[in-house]
Amino acid sequence: MIIDELVQKIKLTGNPSVVGLDTSPEYLPNYEKICDDKTAVAESMIEFNARIIDKIKGIVPAVKVQIAYYEACGVLGMAVFAKTLRFAKNSGMIVIADAKRNDIGATARQYASAFSSGDFDSDFVTVNGYLGTDGIKPFLGDENKGIFALVKTSNPSGGELQDLRLENGLAVYEQMARLVRGWGRESVGKCGYSNVGAVVGATYPEQARQLRQLMPNTFFLVPGYGAQGGGAEGAVAGFDRAGGGGIVNSSRGIICAYKQDKYKGMSYADAAYAAAVDMREDLAAAIAHK
Amino acid sequence: MIIDELVQKIKLTGNPSVVGLDTSPEYLPNYEKICDDKTAVAESMIEFNARIIDKIKGIVPAVKVQIAYYEACGVLGMAVFAKTLRFAKNSGMIVIADAKRNDIGATARQYASAFSSGDFDSDFVTVNGYLGTDGIKPFLGDENKGIFALVKTSNPSGGELQDLRLENGLAVYEQMARLVRGWGRESVGKCGYSNVGAVVGATYPEQARQLRQLMPNTFFLVPGYGAQGGGAEGAVAGFDRAGGGGIVNSSRGIICAYKQDKYKGMSYADAAYAAAVDMREDLAAAIAHK
Repeated sequence: MIIDELVQKIKLTGNPSVVGLDTSPEYLPNYEKICDDKTAVAESMIEFNARIIDKIKGIVPAVKVQIAYYEACGVLGMAVFAKTLRFAKNSGMIVIADAKRNDIGATARQYASAFSSGDFDSDFVTVNGYLGTDGIKPFLGDENKGIFALVKTSNPSGGELQDLRLENGLAVYEQMARLVRGWGRESVGKCGYSNVGAVVGATYPEQARQLRQLMPNTFFLVPGYGAQGGGAEGAVAGFDRAGGGGIVNSSRGIICAYKQDKYKGMSYADAAYAAAVDMREDLAAAIAHK
Repeated sequence: MIIDELVQKIKLTGNPSVVGLDTSPEYLPNYEKICDDKTAVAESMIEFNARIIDKIKGIVPAVKVQIAYYEACGVLGMAVFAKTLRFAKNSGMIVIADAKRNDIGATARQYASAFSSGDFDSDFVTVNGYLGTDGIKPFLGDENKGIFALVKTSNPSGGELQDLRLENGLAVYEQMARLVRGWGRESVGKCGYSNVGAVVGATYPEQARQLRQLMPNTFFLVPGYGAQGGGAEGAVAGFDRAGGGGIVNSSRGIICAYKQDKYKGMSYADAAYAAAVDMREDLAAAIAHK
């Protein structure tokens, strides 16, 4: 079970965090010099990601690669996406493709195929369950692959639909949580969690605590820590009593750490490493105080 | 306004339909011969799409290119996707990228950029509004670009979440419809419809009729006709009194028509043309009987 591998790596590193490689070309220190040369930009993006991965791979269990940043660079960007996934995998990290895919069954089968083999092969892919079970089923069944389905997102307007109350008394996001729980029933690993995880934002700790009750076997991918305004306490609100059950993402907070005063003078890779260590300590303190 | 261009093209062709280029390699007549050669497969995919586009461009206003089928072929597939979009655009067709993108604001900006310029430049892109307004806003503002947001999808389990009743009396899909209506308020064209359209499946005609009332200025992209089981009557159920306000998609029903007994002996491009003519007549009859 891939979820067991993820949980094992979190234990080995003592670090329930994932670094988001949302590598916008503008984040490259040399961007202004090369911005007119698309090939040079693509090469710089893969070098940037590779150096950060090389630096953090011993202390961070996983990377989350946000496909949008690569898609915005066209076909060349998609090649960088593919190379980044492969480099991270070959570096021993767990790889999450953040793509929030969603479609009807026949099309979902294509997406599942895209992320389970070939250029975009990943351990986990994020999905959106608005289309219900037949859009999710194609992603299930291979115990070496997992998904994280959106439940309660970290953004300010996530609640416009997700927080509305249904006639049955549940909020829409809770109903989604029930669906996600059901999708994961067949793939619970030795660690007690399922290959079907949930995205639960760090910015809504109250809901995260409640979702932990509702989905006891569902592992949480927690966005919203750091740049999006969520603190460590909120980020681990949905963790279980043993301090597990989730992994917290930080993207710009790590890969753009070199721009922060705190890490001034460091290379981007060294700054990313230092920021990852700081994040690990921040999360550990929050878990200890839970 | 891009919606005015789409409506104009529908009038010119007398055909409110869109051909879905969901080009799975297996649909290629020569697939078995070339399946071990990824470059040959990619070249055959673009040739297949180009020949169909060349044939139908005079009688079909738009193509919908489902990105999943290309993503499943990796980076080479994404290059075919880009070439297909460009070929269709250069052939004078309206181009819809079916990608159902959804993310938080900063990431949605990357997606919006991906589909509004560069390799994946399209007239419209499909989106999923589960994350609310801040995930949609980045797609708005350019009057030459539009979106279709999922409201009521055509698949069997779409209702698991979408059909649930909220405390306010609306179904979830109706609440989504309200959001979509709001997102489109600023971009209503001369035709009376907005650049922000809605995906409303042909398989749920009752809901489509009701959504037409709820969203009088929202243009419908209607999947589910043909291979998915929706008939012409269901497909035009959400059309307005003048027989406009929507465009009906058929994918396999057109691009795989050459496999049907009805079009036996024809080349795939000729069969696609014949099937597109048949679909136009089918829709026209259904509109006349409305």
